[in-house]
Amino acid sequence: MTTDTTPAELEQALTDAADAAGPLAASEPAVRAGWIRAVADALDAAADELVPIAMRESALPEPRLRGEVGRSSGQLRMFADALEEGSLLEVIIDTADPQAKPVPRPDLRRLLVPLGPVLVFAASNFPFAFSVCGGDTASALAAGCPVIVKAHPGHPELSVRTAEVMIEALRVAGAPAGTLGLIQGYDVGVTALKDPRITAAGFTGSVPAGKALHEIAVTRPEPIPFYGELGSLNPVFVTQAAVDARGNDIATGYVGSFTLGVGQFCTKPGLLFLPAGHGLEDKLVEAAGGVAEAPMLNDRIAEGFSSGLDRLRKIDGIRVLSDGGATLLGTTVTELLARPEEILEECFGPVSIVVEYSSTDELQAAVEAFEGNLTATLQAEESADAELAGKLLPLLTARAGRVLWNGWPTGVAVSWAQHHGGPFPSSVGSIHTSVGVTAARRFQRPVAYQDTPDVVLPAVLRDGNPAGISRRVNGTVTTGEVSR
Amino acid sequence: MTTDTTPAELEQALTDAADAAGPLAASEPAVRAGWIRAVADALDAAADELVPIAMRESALPEPRLRGEVGRSSGQLRMFADALEEGSLLEVIIDTADPQAKPVPRPDLRRLLVPLGPVLVFAASNFPFAFSVCGGDTASALAAGCPVIVKAHPGHPELSVRTAEVMIEALRVAGAPAGTLGLIQGYDVGVTALKDPRITAAGFTGSVPAGKALHEIAVTRPEPIPFYGELGSLNPVFVTQAAVDARGNDIATGYVGSFTLGVGQFCTKPGLLFLPAGHGLEDKLVEAAGGVAEAPMLNDRIAEGFSSGLDRLRKIDGIRVLSDGGATLLGTTVTELLARPEEILEECFGPVSIVVEYSSTDELQAAVEAFEGNLTATLQAEESADAELAGKLLPLLTARAGRVLWNGWPTGVAVSWAQHHGGPFPSSVGSIHTSVGVTAARRFQRPVAYQDTPDVVLPAVLRDGNPAGISRRVNGTVTTGEVSR
Repeated sequence: MTTDTTPAELEQALTDAADAAGPLAASEPAVRAGWIRAVADALDAAADELVPIAMRESALPEPRLRGEVGRSSGQLRMFADALEEGSLLEVIIDTADPQAKPVPRPDLRRLLVPLGPVLVFAASNFPFAFSVCGGDTASALAAGCPVIVKAHPGHPELSVRTAEVMIEALRVAGAPAGTLGLIQGYDVGVTALKDPRITAAGFTGSVPAGKALHEIAVTRPEPIPFYGELGSLNPVFVTQAAVDARGNDIATGYVGSFTLGVGQFCTKPGLLFLPAGHGLEDKLVEAAGGVAEAPMLNDRIAEGFSSGLDRLRKIDGIRVLSDGGATLLGTTVTELLARPEEILEECFGPVSIVVEYSSTDELQAAVEAFEGNLTATLQAEESADAELAGKLLPLLTARAGRVLWNGWPTGVAVSWAQHHGGPFPSSVGSIHTSVGVTAARRFQRPVAYQDTPDVVLPAVLRDGNPAGISRRVNGTVTTGEVSR
Repeated sequence: MTTDTTPAELEQALTDAADAAGPLAASEPAVRAGWIRAVADALDAAADELVPIAMRESALPEPRLRGEVGRSSGQLRMFADALEEGSLLEVIIDTADPQAKPVPRPDLRRLLVPLGPVLVFAASNFPFAFSVCGGDTASALAAGCPVIVKAHPGHPELSVRTAEVMIEALRVAGAPAGTLGLIQGYDVGVTALKDPRITAAGFTGSVPAGKALHEIAVTRPEPIPFYGELGSLNPVFVTQAAVDARGNDIATGYVGSFTLGVGQFCTKPGLLFLPAGHGLEDKLVEAAGGVAEAPMLNDRIAEGFSSGLDRLRKIDGIRVLSDGGATLLGTTVTELLARPEEILEECFGPVSIVVEYSSTDELQAAVEAFEGNLTATLQAEESADAELAGKLLPLLTARAGRVLWNGWPTGVAVSWAQHHGGPFPSSVGSIHTSVGVTAARRFQRPVAYQDTPDVVLPAVLRDGNPAGISRRVNGTVTTGEVSR
């Protein structure tokens, strides 16, 4: 099961994906949407078989994993909807303007076409939602790209069975053979990443692995885009007014968030900034002490957590507030600013640091100490904190891809407006998202047709708009027809 | 005038740009649109002063350069319009859905925010449209990014004066100091590209220079996006029916296109594929023979053209059809397929190759011999060639960013639907365009606000939609208000 893909098998997977690229690119968007819905239905139908495998391989509990299956199938259906509605293709039509200055303008019709075979490096911490059937795969299929998933070694059997379920659903639905493939082994993944048939790659994982793969992708003879979700600290900043209004809820909400999934979320809040004299330490310690010890995803992650925790505990100025199923550390902004590089390093697992600030100037300085993050959260009171929030939100915006108000960063809703990504090093390719409809854009490139007759245009660009999709025509979004 | 920027001057330019980033990001889109319009007006007003400098430094004729000024100011106004209309900000709002499965959905509001200071490497061949006041600068300013332009050494005085005109217009209009800066010198540009304050770069120029700068940008400690427009062959494929219907027009149109601007367009058609026995050679030779010799942009380009031409002429199987102000070479698909790497290498200047094919299979094989191009053109007859065109267009689409029907690739209209870019090596970053409204997207990243009160949100995200811009609300594009 955990045997690496052989060179012959990899060659076959790459050939199959390359062969599928043309037919997939030529498929009508509504037909492709049907294939994607078939995959979603098959996943839901296979949940009873897949979830137990995932439980065994990931040590995650059943309700969480069932939720992930629903999230993944729902995500596939969202992309199918966006394909049918048409916005995923970003059709833009400017009809000819013989009067345009300084020169007459031709008829131009643009849409997004698939890049070609996409390599997806699956993550360990979401065995469904960021693995074989996850967002990278879903968005690439919606774009019309064949996908080869490099399975995560943390859940090999689940990866194989998930791929089998999806491939069978695609086959029955009539999708081209080679639309989806699975490979195993780190070196195999690197070999695939260097192959000229691969046109883009998605990755979710650690900063070192992401950086190494990114460098391979962008320095190939033919560089390709590499979209990496790496690490993130996801700081939470709490105002005095928020402490006064709902301190206890903040304490329990925070502990619940940083220990969710045994602290193995890329959106885990790694630091909580509280005003000095907040009086919440007992409540925080109580909540953290109530967290039961739970197994981590795999031995490698458990070892990484253990050594990371040892490192954090030994830093000058860090004290241990609570130790057990969850570890709560404490420090001050003064200490943090004295050694930011030591303290601001992600430790993947159930640990977080409470940091006390002594003034709003210090709070602002703490915000400014951060590099790029997936999320940044402000816990504040609308009435009392409007001015402070007005000052801090632009600083948080400059450092994060998602800014939360009085929420917790764990949990990434799948919707049109979602953004999951952030300035480096939280992601490589911060102008793109790995969650939400616009995630498909990572695997599409524009093509504009100039003065091309209706009969040979892709159907979605034709005057009559046969599929009735949303298109921007001469600057305005419409589902109507076009006259030349 | 051609002195390199000193280290102290570069440091000042970078500091000024970094200082301008926050105020620019905070500027209301409509206000920013006003600044951009002020720049457009100033350029138009300064045309009488700038065009003579450009004529002297580039050897290009006055009408062409006046057209370029109009194109550049028009482009700036297009971005201003798209800012005010709002689509440039790509606002997406999904209101909260407490009933959503598997988990309730929060209120999410996404927009695109500026990346930060952008470095633009100007091109030589369009002293306005792809230089200091060109598309990279215009789109980055529209995105809300400060811009530092690395001037092209081919027109140093024009670069300085253009920047002065633009900087003064920005100052008078009230834009932050540091919104635009100019630096000179290749090494200075490389130093700037490595500076952590630079967050993205745009480039138009040669393949070797583009590849070298790309590698620097993406292997920095903090990698940044690098958008490079490199070389392109822009093949034109002519069917027998098109020859029969309008062979002479094709011959003269082709010569006009490949000699436009002394062949110094990145969209110059480098090859014309004609059916064997086309009977157009006399007409082609006559047209090419009528092209007067004209000076090239600068000595470096003239030398490059001369050696490139020598190289092409010496290739086995290439014959010279016409030689003079324009050089027309001839070969066959058989010869081309025997040595594609020799023949399919861009030669920047007034030279092009007529290639004869003996069957539609050979025509298709010729199409498939190409790598990525900015454009690919089919000259065909709608009535006779529907089937052939249906076969060739997908192959052209796979290899080009813009596909033309019965036109010539020189001339890139500035509009919503335009796409100027193509698969590698014609551009690095083929999913982006350097012309058209979506060019701004290269310098923007998404940020999503979760459950954030109206009063602290950016104005464009607020319920009341005070600026009345286009927004996607719960999946539908509207200019209306939102209720929570």
